[in-house]
Amino acid sequence: MTVTTPQGFRASGVAAGLKASGNDDVAVVVNDGPAAAVAGVFTANRVKAAPVLWSQQVVRGGVVRAVVLNSGGANACTGTLGFQDTHATAEHVAAGLAIGAGEVAVCSTGLIGERLPMDKLLPGVTAALEGLAADGGDAAARAIMTTDTRPKSTVVDGGGWTVGGMAKGAGMLAPAMATMLCVLTTDAVADARTLDVALRAATRLTFDRVDSDGCMSTNDTVLLLASGASGVSPSTHELTEAVTAACRDLCEQLVDDAEGATKKVAIEVTSAASDDDAVEVGRSIARNNLVKTALFGNDPNWGRILAAVGTTAAAFDPDELDVAVNGVWVCRSGSAAEDRSKVDLSGRDVTVRVALHAGTATATIWTNDLSHGYVHENSAYST
Amino acid sequence: MTVTTPQGFRASGVAAGLKASGNDDVAVVVNDGPAAAVAGVFTANRVKAAPVLWSQQVVRGGVVRAVVLNSGGANACTGTLGFQDTHATAEHVAAGLAIGAGEVAVCSTGLIGERLPMDKLLPGVTAALEGLAADGGDAAARAIMTTDTRPKSTVVDGGGWTVGGMAKGAGMLAPAMATMLCVLTTDAVADARTLDVALRAATRLTFDRVDSDGCMSTNDTVLLLASGASGVSPSTHELTEAVTAACRDLCEQLVDDAEGATKKVAIEVTSAASDDDAVEVGRSIARNNLVKTALFGNDPNWGRILAAVGTTAAAFDPDELDVAVNGVWVCRSGSAAEDRSKVDLSGRDVTVRVALHAGTATATIWTNDLSHGYVHENSAYST
Repeated sequence: MTVTTPQGFRASGVAAGLKASGNDDVAVVVNDGPAAAVAGVFTANRVKAAPVLWSQQVVRGGVVRAVVLNSGGANACTGTLGFQDTHATAEHVAAGLAIGAGEVAVCSTGLIGERLPMDKLLPGVTAALEGLAADGGDAAARAIMTTDTRPKSTVVDGGGWTVGGMAKGAGMLAPAMATMLCVLTTDAVADARTLDVALRAATRLTFDRVDSDGCMSTNDTVLLLASGASGVSPSTHELTEAVTAACRDLCEQLVDDAEGATKKVAIEVTSAASDDDAVEVGRSIARNNLVKTALFGNDPNWGRILAAVGTTAAAFDPDELDVAVNGVWVCRSGSAAEDRSKVDLSGRDVTVRVALHAGTATATIWTNDLSHGYVHENSAYST
Repeated sequence: MTVTTPQGFRASGVAAGLKASGNDDVAVVVNDGPAAAVAGVFTANRVKAAPVLWSQQVVRGGVVRAVVLNSGGANACTGTLGFQDTHATAEHVAAGLAIGAGEVAVCSTGLIGERLPMDKLLPGVTAALEGLAADGGDAAARAIMTTDTRPKSTVVDGGGWTVGGMAKGAGMLAPAMATMLCVLTTDAVADARTLDVALRAATRLTFDRVDSDGCMSTNDTVLLLASGASGVSPSTHELTEAVTAACRDLCEQLVDDAEGATKKVAIEVTSAASDDDAVEVGRSIARNNLVKTALFGNDPNWGRILAAVGTTAAAFDPDELDVAVNGVWVCRSGSAAEDRSKVDLSGRDVTVRVALHAGTATATIWTNDLSHGYVHENSAYST
């Protein structure tokens, strides 16, 4: 179980016919309370999908009792009519649950630029509402998949209360605020302000540090719903820890299942002058296609890593940079050190460590290699 | 002919054994005067190769009588010893020509992080000096190739004076100041200051707007040498025009021969609030792997283009963006417009036009698609 593991939540997933494959494509998550607090973070992309524009308004109200999600279409770049489709979807959920449309968040994912087939979506939403169940989390996680090869769910035990979550990812995976679609639930007692603090702290260290392919989505949404059903009020710190752990687990699953990836890469930047410097350097390496293709080729090409570091504004002296690949320090003080043939890149997990020798800050960015599979999958997606 | 087309220059290219293939790998270009003015622009990468550090000093002196270039090794991230190798190479050229080492620019290209085999390089330089010829430009252009499939040369007739040039490119091709190795020659009469003005104006509109794979090199160098042998003194404007035309021609050749590319893509950003905005938007599209893979797949995926525009700080309203692919306006006012099936992407040349409706500035960024060939070539380069 996942989003329905915490008390007070029901969920479901059904096939509405939005996907050509016939797989499930509509999910609903309902918060039965007693509370209905919410927080959300959304894509920093300025081209925002209709459901993002809608859900940002809804979350601002601080109360969300239901989230409706669809795969098979992003409802992005669809203009006023697309926004009306999102509104109509929320109204449809609200009518079925006898709540207000302003308490219904909407998330969509899939191809950009096409209207959703409302004649299929709304009957699907009706079916999803009818199928709501206290063990429906797995079905919901499955219904939001696009090119994901498996559903992503998580549960973190807070001690008398729980955080659950589900996410979809795979492509266009480089959030600047949040990434992809993710719904987190908790039965902790917490108001919207506390949830917001916990969620922003968590996403800053997790989703914001995933950079699979450098491409920021129009639809990224992370929602955190609290039912209060456990009756337990954790401290903000405790809640933040649990939400961060849930987000971290989902991020690992996202990077592990990224489109076409053959490597799951952790880029650890150490001895940076600031957190921002460490993140900038890590992201620059993560986005460098020559580094990514080298990793695909099992090539510990530290020269390309240094070239990527050199494009940043971070504090460092080029003659002091150290680089280790899977524990072998192939570069010390900006020049060749240990023999690159000692590096074993045959496994799926890769760790690149870069020491800047400019301070004490550290950050880890998670990314993937750039493979033939990525090119294939993304050159054939819409055609 | 190329760099030797203007009067007053000799050049040569020989095989020193730096390349495993046995192909030519050392080139020399000599300016026989009467003048020896020079200007240069270099990579903005903070991790700079030894020859870049050397040549920056030399160009600062305003006089360059010879350029020695090698492929088969970048001499980057090689520390103090690598710098000594560059210095020794310049001294070797200087001794052979009876000039000062401070009048010899050095350029290297190839794998980062390995010392050059000086026992092969210096005899190669000797042979290159012996082979200097007034028609040696083609040989020189061939000797600086790495993964280039063909040499790149250009000639621009100024009317009584000429600009010639050669360049190598192919990978790590996203300059922020200059790109790759390029030597331009002219027999115009012009001092170092005038050459600098002309060269910076030219590279700003040409090399700085090539972004093939988003990766900035450690070795980018563009040199402009003036012999004054024509006796003609063009105006700064005339010189800038000719140098810009030479650079543009070389850029076209670079993008046409980029690693693994199946498309040569011009991204034209119009009605921007400023030049900087137009360049930022163009570069963001050029670097977006989902746009690049879509183009490889002959998919006019304008949604991905809008998502890339949305990550920039440029002035625009998402609901006013227009996008044309090969002349078909598939997106108007941020939503679907003409049928995407009308777009013919079967050819090698692609034009993406984005109208921001925020001003009158325009810029064109040249890029390539992201293909299986790129992944193959760059996952196997050093292994």
